[in-house]
Amino acid sequence: MDRPAIASFPFTTTLTTRWADNDVYGHVNNVTYYAYFDTIANLYLIQHGLDIHGESIGLVVASQCQFFASLAYPDPLVGALRVEKLGRSSVTYQIAVAREGEPLVAALATMTHVFVDRATRRPTPIPDPLRTALQALT
Amino acid sequence: MDRPAIASFPFTTTLTTRWADNDVYGHVNNVTYYAYFDTIANLYLIQHGLDIHGESIGLVVASQCQFFASLAYPDPLVGALRVEKLGRSSVTYQIAVAREGEPLVAALATMTHVFVDRATRRPTPIPDPLRTALQALT
Amino acid sequence: MDRPAIASFPFTTTLTTRWADNDVYGHVNNVTYYAYFDTIANLYLIQHGLDIHGESIGLVVASQCQFFASLAYPDPLVGALRVEKLGRSSVTYQIAVAREGEPLVAALATMTHVFVDRATRRPTPIPDPLRTALQALT
Amino acid sequence: MDRPAIASFPFTTTLTTRWADNDVYGHVNNVTYYAYFDTIANLYLIQHGLDIHGESIGLVVASQCQFFASLAYPDPLVGALRVEKLGRSSVTYQIAVAREGEPLVAALATMTHVFVDRATRRPTPIPDPLRTALQALT
Repeated sequence: MDRPAIASFPFTTTLTTRWADNDVYGHVNNVTYYAYFDTIANLYLIQHGLDIHGESIGLVVASQCQFFASLAYPDPLVGALRVEKLGRSSVTYQIAVAREGEPLVAALATMTHVFVDRATRRPTPIPDPLRTALQALT
Repeated sequence: MDRPAIASFPFTTTLTTRWADNDVYGHVNNVTYYAYFDTIANLYLIQHGLDIHGESIGLVVASQCQFFASLAYPDPLVGALRVEKLGRSSVTYQIAVAREGEPLVAALATMTHVFVDRATRRPTPIPDPLRTALQALT
Repeated sequence: MDRPAIASFPFTTTLTTRWADNDVYGHVNNVTYYAYFDTIANLYLIQHGLDIHGESIGLVVASQCQFFASLAYPDPLVGALRVEKLGRSSVTYQIAVAREGEPLVAALATMTHVFVDRATRRPTPIPDPLRTALQALT
Repeated sequence: MDRPAIASFPFTTTLTTRWADNDVYGHVNNVTYYAYFDTIANLYLIQHGLDIHGESIGLVVASQCQFFASLAYPDPLVGALRVEKLGRSSVTYQIAVAREGEPLVAALATMTHVFVDRATRRPTPIPDPLRTALQALT
């Protein structure tokens, strides 16, 4: 994957870093990026109607990330989201983070949510309001 | 400890919450508050000259927290800091977090940093620029 | 608080450390100790009947910790638990961690759970099987 | 990727889960799996001579994971490691976790470490003792 500009994403949000994000090597640990990605995607879903205590929930079935540049606490970050593929009950996002003020992303990920029924954990169609909101990011 | 107003603190900063902050009970896990506290205190130190790769570092020797109200992702938070006691090589902070827009803190903590030499881990005097900055918060 | 022997606690369990437990100072971050404490206390509760998806849940209303010695990944740890005070709907634990093979604890904490109704978040009596199990740790 | 047996990996280690590993959906959060993966790979490196405070360090440049089954605290886990590709200064691992007692992995990841000089962050050859140890996992 190429290293895109953060400005090429239709949805962005500010993220603050934390002391514990830095690992022993003095930069944000690779694991923490995935915490950012989860936060960015779910924020968009919640802003558009996802009820995290409701019946239809999105479970991550696959994710991946390419790391282009280091980040470090206490730098503030920009998180960014777009939709790569929207299926009946699944959605694959492209998610990125950049240091605030940097034009290029520091890391680029894809992550796939499958929407399931909370109780049975069987796939269910993506609820209509979320589908509309996700379509706006394609 | 009484539940103070967030506005009574001399230093405040914005914190963003994360998906993983919420535990199985649907609110920010008690452990995560301590991650906020560490982030708030070190942010102030770094803004006033602490070099986290330098020779004099602050280690936490004691901390405590009283939890007054729940917080939940994706709510943005306000973190707040003041200095309760400033010694030769140690400083005890009062640190609080509140939901953005809420007048009262959700949790109030104290945390004690002892400054030590990075290599020997023996106490050293708090460096002068940091001491001045900390005095401004008493 | 004095630094007790890990062998003085009635309940112990093994904990494995993680890469990300170490912060930029090369030892386990103070916040992570609280993650250990939560894990130790809830493990004992779950082993004695707590249903984390059930109606009666334990919320942390206060915690504190004194740090006596450093820990570092990849060292395995011993977690330890006893009950300091058992009330009608609340319990205060003493919780400790030690490096495996070390006689003295590296950190000693107290943590107070208030049992509440999951829906109303009002205090409820500690369920009988848990009360019996907690009494065994006093 | 197919879902392999945990027994097909040449290196395994026990991992304990934590209260905060479970997210609001009651199972281990997808992010936490990556914390396991980091822990497993670095444990093997440290056991074979990696000095995390030394000059040659391994940075993650890419990772991915496929999630086959849920895990939940307080279940103990087995972590597993093999080497997919060993280059001059980079190594790509296959890493898996399984619930203890389950024959099939719950998640399968690949992760690529590039070894760099700590100061310059330029790629360096994998140190010989580590190379030998990694070759044993191919």
